[in-house]
Amino acid sequence: MRMLATIQYDGSNYHGWQVQNNAVTVQQTVQDAMQSIFGYRPNATGCSRTDSGVHALKFCYHFDYDGNISPKKIVSAMNAKLPHDIAMIDCKEVSPNFHARYSVKQKTYVYKIYNNEVRSPFNEKYAVHDARRLDVEIMNKAASHFVGEHDFSAFCAAGSSVEDNVRTVYSAKVERHGDEVWFVVSANGFLYNMVRIMAGTLLFVAYGKISPDEIEAIIESKSRENAGITAPAHGLYLADVEY
Amino acid sequence: MRMLATIQYDGSNYHGWQVQNNAVTVQQTVQDAMQSIFGYRPNATGCSRTDSGVHALKFCYHFDYDGNISPKKIVSAMNAKLPHDIAMIDCKEVSPNFHARYSVKQKTYVYKIYNNEVRSPFNEKYAVHDARRLDVEIMNKAASHFVGEHDFSAFCAAGSSVEDNVRTVYSAKVERHGDEVWFVVSANGFLYNMVRIMAGTLLFVAYGKISPDEIEAIIESKSRENAGITAPAHGLYLADVEY
Repeated sequence: MRMLATIQYDGSNYHGWQVQNNAVTVQQTVQDAMQSIFGYRPNATGCSRTDSGVHALKFCYHFDYDGNISPKKIVSAMNAKLPHDIAMIDCKEVSPNFHARYSVKQKTYVYKIYNNEVRSPFNEKYAVHDARRLDVEIMNKAASHFVGEHDFSAFCAAGSSVEDNVRTVYSAKVERHGDEVWFVVSANGFLYNMVRIMAGTLLFVAYGKISPDEIEAIIESKSRENAGITAPAHGLYLADVEY
Repeated sequence: MRMLATIQYDGSNYHGWQVQNNAVTVQQTVQDAMQSIFGYRPNATGCSRTDSGVHALKFCYHFDYDGNISPKKIVSAMNAKLPHDIAMIDCKEVSPNFHARYSVKQKTYVYKIYNNEVRSPFNEKYAVHDARRLDVEIMNKAASHFVGEHDFSAFCAAGSSVEDNVRTVYSAKVERHGDEVWFVVSANGFLYNMVRIMAGTLLFVAYGKISPDEIEAIIESKSRENAGITAPAHGLYLADVEY
């Protein structure tokens, strides 16, 4: 049976999802837990790679399973085995040709900025601190230019090996939630570091270094050097995955 | 000059506020930071003792200072010196007879319960996990009985040396915020472990072990054994202090 598991994780102590030599990753940790429950080691195929330090409110992976533990019991057994910074929130059977990565229709990321004069003891690992009061309206205007089908090469880390850099952004909004400013973006797919570069560029807009309407020209330039900095990983959350 | 400092802290890595031998406390940590900035070691007199693991969204302490660094610069210098889990949010001069503990008019605590079938990777140290769906209405009804001037001996840890156990609770409410259930209580003062025992008792009400109207009789009994368990420290936040 092909199974689809949904997990959440605090990425602070992990070198991203993908198994690596000499570094603890989320994939390896969930495979360890499955191995101790199932007695063999299924491969966990994730919905995306996430970088070191990036968090997930919803991350999906598929695996193949032929035992007879019910999905409900798999969830509780996994939560007993997994470390405190990873939790399984769902597990269900899917069709044999389902693929956690290739079947994705839409993904949503949230980038969180803690916007207060003084840093927060509670947000150190969960949001990027910016002491300057950010103008959410102007950032939101800039973000609206991301919506649509574009070649996002300007928002892709140099050295990425993907050939086709065209993605469709369904929505891109900047919202204030008390002392937090959230950049929320949904698309059919994302390039390497795309959300972090978008977030860094929106911060440049807030600082007055880039005007909101320049975003269009930056996209058209297809040149990474025209966009802003790559914002730090710990502000980024994979928030939703739709199939 | 007598100065009043306001701080926030994540209490996870501290053995409470009060200086102890062989354990790191918040008081010692802020005194260390002040010493390195001022060149002498002022005594930091806190608004209350907090237990090991308890957090503070707002905690006040006073200290005496005769230097000429402005309060605004003290705040930024302290935030540069303090570890990431403590932040200073304000510092100002007060009258010489002001006392951080004895001048308190009202304190507010929040007790947070993460109420979801599955534990959260993000709330491990910041809320107590309870998988059973809690009936907030019935808990709130029980909490309303705390309001008023009462002898709260039934809600005081055994072995406490305080002689007068009468306190006035100004408000006591249970609210749902998404997956979190908050018990918010304001009073002119609190006995040792009082909020944690109240929270544990409200959980017993939610589990059907105690009926909401029994709270009155538990208060009247003045006997600790009639109240519920002492809920864990890491769900508790000192949220406000008013002078």
